[in-house]
Amino acid sequence: MAKSPEMEHPVKAFGWAARDTTGILSPFKFSRRATGEYDVQLKVLYCGICHSDLHNAKNDWGLTPYPVVPGHEISGVVTEVGSKVKKFKVGDKVGVGCVVESCRQCDQCNKDLENYCSKLVLTYAATDTDGTPTYGGYSDIMVVNEHFVLHWPENLPLDAGAPLLCAGITTYSPLRHYGLDKPGLHIGIVGLGGLGHVGVKFAKAFGSKVTVISTSINKKKEAIEKLGADAFLISRDEEEMRGAVGTFDGIIDTVSAVHSLSPLLSLLKPDGKLITVGAPEKPLEVPIFPDLITGRKMVAGSMIGGWKETQEMLDFAAKHNILPDVEIVTMDYVNTAMERLVKSDVKYRFGDECDRLRRFGKHIYRRRRLEVEGGGTLPQESNCRSGDPQQATAPLLLAATIHSHVAPNNSTIRHAVAVYAGIRHWRATTVVCGATSCWRRLEENDNSILAFRVSEFLKFGDGGLLCNFENCIRSPPISIDMKEVSHAILEIA
Amino acid sequence: MAKSPEMEHPVKAFGWAARDTTGILSPFKFSRRATGEYDVQLKVLYCGICHSDLHNAKNDWGLTPYPVVPGHEISGVVTEVGSKVKKFKVGDKVGVGCVVESCRQCDQCNKDLENYCSKLVLTYAATDTDGTPTYGGYSDIMVVNEHFVLHWPENLPLDAGAPLLCAGITTYSPLRHYGLDKPGLHIGIVGLGGLGHVGVKFAKAFGSKVTVISTSINKKKEAIEKLGADAFLISRDEEEMRGAVGTFDGIIDTVSAVHSLSPLLSLLKPDGKLITVGAPEKPLEVPIFPDLITGRKMVAGSMIGGWKETQEMLDFAAKHNILPDVEIVTMDYVNTAMERLVKSDVKYRFGDECDRLRRFGKHIYRRRRLEVEGGGTLPQESNCRSGDPQQATAPLLLAATIHSHVAPNNSTIRHAVAVYAGIRHWRATTVVCGATSCWRRLEENDNSILAFRVSEFLKFGDGGLLCNFENCIRSPPISIDMKEVSHAILEIA
Repeated sequence: MAKSPEMEHPVKAFGWAARDTTGILSPFKFSRRATGEYDVQLKVLYCGICHSDLHNAKNDWGLTPYPVVPGHEISGVVTEVGSKVKKFKVGDKVGVGCVVESCRQCDQCNKDLENYCSKLVLTYAATDTDGTPTYGGYSDIMVVNEHFVLHWPENLPLDAGAPLLCAGITTYSPLRHYGLDKPGLHIGIVGLGGLGHVGVKFAKAFGSKVTVISTSINKKKEAIEKLGADAFLISRDEEEMRGAVGTFDGIIDTVSAVHSLSPLLSLLKPDGKLITVGAPEKPLEVPIFPDLITGRKMVAGSMIGGWKETQEMLDFAAKHNILPDVEIVTMDYVNTAMERLVKSDVKYRFGDECDRLRRFGKHIYRRRRLEVEGGGTLPQESNCRSGDPQQATAPLLLAATIHSHVAPNNSTIRHAVAVYAGIRHWRATTVVCGATSCWRRLEENDNSILAFRVSEFLKFGDGGLLCNFENCIRSPPISIDMKEVSHAILEIA
Repeated sequence: MAKSPEMEHPVKAFGWAARDTTGILSPFKFSRRATGEYDVQLKVLYCGICHSDLHNAKNDWGLTPYPVVPGHEISGVVTEVGSKVKKFKVGDKVGVGCVVESCRQCDQCNKDLENYCSKLVLTYAATDTDGTPTYGGYSDIMVVNEHFVLHWPENLPLDAGAPLLCAGITTYSPLRHYGLDKPGLHIGIVGLGGLGHVGVKFAKAFGSKVTVISTSINKKKEAIEKLGADAFLISRDEEEMRGAVGTFDGIIDTVSAVHSLSPLLSLLKPDGKLITVGAPEKPLEVPIFPDLITGRKMVAGSMIGGWKETQEMLDFAAKHNILPDVEIVTMDYVNTAMERLVKSDVKYRFGDECDRLRRFGKHIYRRRRLEVEGGGTLPQESNCRSGDPQQATAPLLLAATIHSHVAPNNSTIRHAVAVYAGIRHWRATTVVCGATSCWRRLEENDNSILAFRVSEFLKFGDGGLLCNFENCIRSPPISIDMKEVSHAILEIA
């Protein structure tokens, strides 16, 4: 029988995990391996919230093993090194990116392109070489082979620099690889989100003329004044687009939404390169003729970068003072941040106005707050509202359940909720429940049973119930008919 | 008022032109410019029939100005040179490809990439720098600026070598440009038509391992034994395809039909290149994620090559004895050849069994036969069949009309038809007509009027009537109600 995440390894770890396709993150106790001969153990200080974290948390790509602890833009400090580690010592500032292991012997690895190794091990949502799951940077510590640990440049801030490890290298690498790093070139950046805004900074640092391509003029001020772009092109303005046809040497397209590549291809000069670094869920239509053929143009992809190049990128960013724009948030805000990401995902169109939401792609949260988890009171903004079942997130019921389990002395539901909701900004703002045996059992204080029987709640998705307690996951499931969960309204605070 | 094609220029020329979207070619008198200071005049000896000739003749790309004389795989002998021509002398064997002029001053021209010059002048279906239409190699003479005339290598056959000027350079150039010309690489060629079979030969000559990718095993013998491919991959065989995933450095995709690129992309190694040289009428779906992104793969296009590179290609082909496989046909067979192309266009799917038909893409016809045009009898296979109006090609009516005009002494329709149909394999196999004043006038021998009034026939397209005589084109139109053209059946032979 497989060991639990908490028992796999000797080193206790704590993080936030998504348990199902709701993508909602909740506290998660697991373990890390002991620091091996070539391993570096680090205390995570900052971790970027990348758009792909959301995709993985919600299993958008169908590859997520739950529970999943996201996070692959990690900065921290070395706390322990293995006996054969040469590159690092305790106290070093370091970074960890999207990959923590590769085969080290294939053509790609030999070319320092571990990111394209077919046996690469992603930082999370993957299986490590020892067969255990990898857990990402939304956690307190990491243990990583030194090959995949990066030296953190002295003058690079640990917080704002973290997103360079994904968003940064994702735009830096294609600019370099496809020869779009030469002074005087005209480079387009499509999408001004987490990737795009860093792409602008790199392309400028390479000496290019940089044009941001967006569907809305709303981003123009930011693009020009804040990011230093030379020009701004509104893709919905046909006249503007016509005037720019055949003027770009290369375009980095960071848009993840399904969109038309034809207008972008027409902007390219002959031999122009359209590099896609977003990950649209569906194939995109490419007009082979005439666009691709008659101008010897290309549509190519790129995914992060190799570790040698990632180090080069970090050093380049430090030297040229290239930093992602970030908003520092606390760990307990992560679900709200994710929710904002979701909204942007729905609303975002090829460069539209939702950029403000998308910018969570470049935000990082501060980990220290984890340490003060627990206690506190329900925040004011969490006043209970009545709602219909479709809106019910219902974590309060479960929070109560859990609390009753972990703190049986607090026997009233209200109190239980209040204590658990002490994690600030927890989603416990709307609760609709009732008419279930669960609820009655809660009222009867029959928590000892219930606490282990709520795992089925997980299956109800966004509109349903969620168990936030890891023990529940391993309990036998019970079913709740959601049709029944529509009457009683729990009033809190 | 614009001059007629015959009066534009001083040099009389003769060719075969399509007059409408039927794409049917018929004799056409026009003119070429006098040999200018930098011009080379050549007698056309051979011209390949390229698939794009068909697209242009039928206006599949919406760009065709009628009448159009196709042909851009031209070999011949210099008959006159301008006073400042340095590279050629009378008697030189030469070639002319897809382009006859460019701006000579843009970035592309300066990089010897005239083929990507935005002001390039195509060999036919384009407007020359003097404002007159360009007419291609389905004709007796050409006048071309020496810059776009190629030296014909001594040991390269003038007939079989002609298709190198389009099919050859179209595969040679991307192999060179995208670095797919290195010994030891694994190159895939998709589609074994005019382009593909030459691509196999070039890739082999570069020292690559070459695998032909096809939907059917039927081509395997030809690919391996005749063309020298190292392997053959059946794209419909899922197991075979799985076994080949990630093993190709590059793939040249010559298929013009709409097809899925995803299976091809999966065959590529990381950094692999899928180069499309066919011209699908619709955009193709490209799975950006994961295919393109996770392997830094590219889908790129390529279109013929620059003139320096085309000369290099010809010399390379001569040195390595690379020749397209051709079937030599006479000029008067061109419509049948085109018809076979059409059929292949309808039936052809990603590497399916219709390759035999597609192979007209690499066939050339012998021009000398033009000189014996006229006379003869209706061939046996042209026995008249009854048919419905949808099938009516009806050129016989018009042939009769025209004949009555050009040979008024032959007063019976039947005889007139027979004489005109002396152009072998002419499409006059099915005729449905009648119930029109035209027909009655023909029966009444009122040819003198009618001969000049059939130009409107041109508008009926494939299912309608076609005037094959150039004088008619300039006559005032009359209309024929096609609903009326369904009763009388003309029996011939």
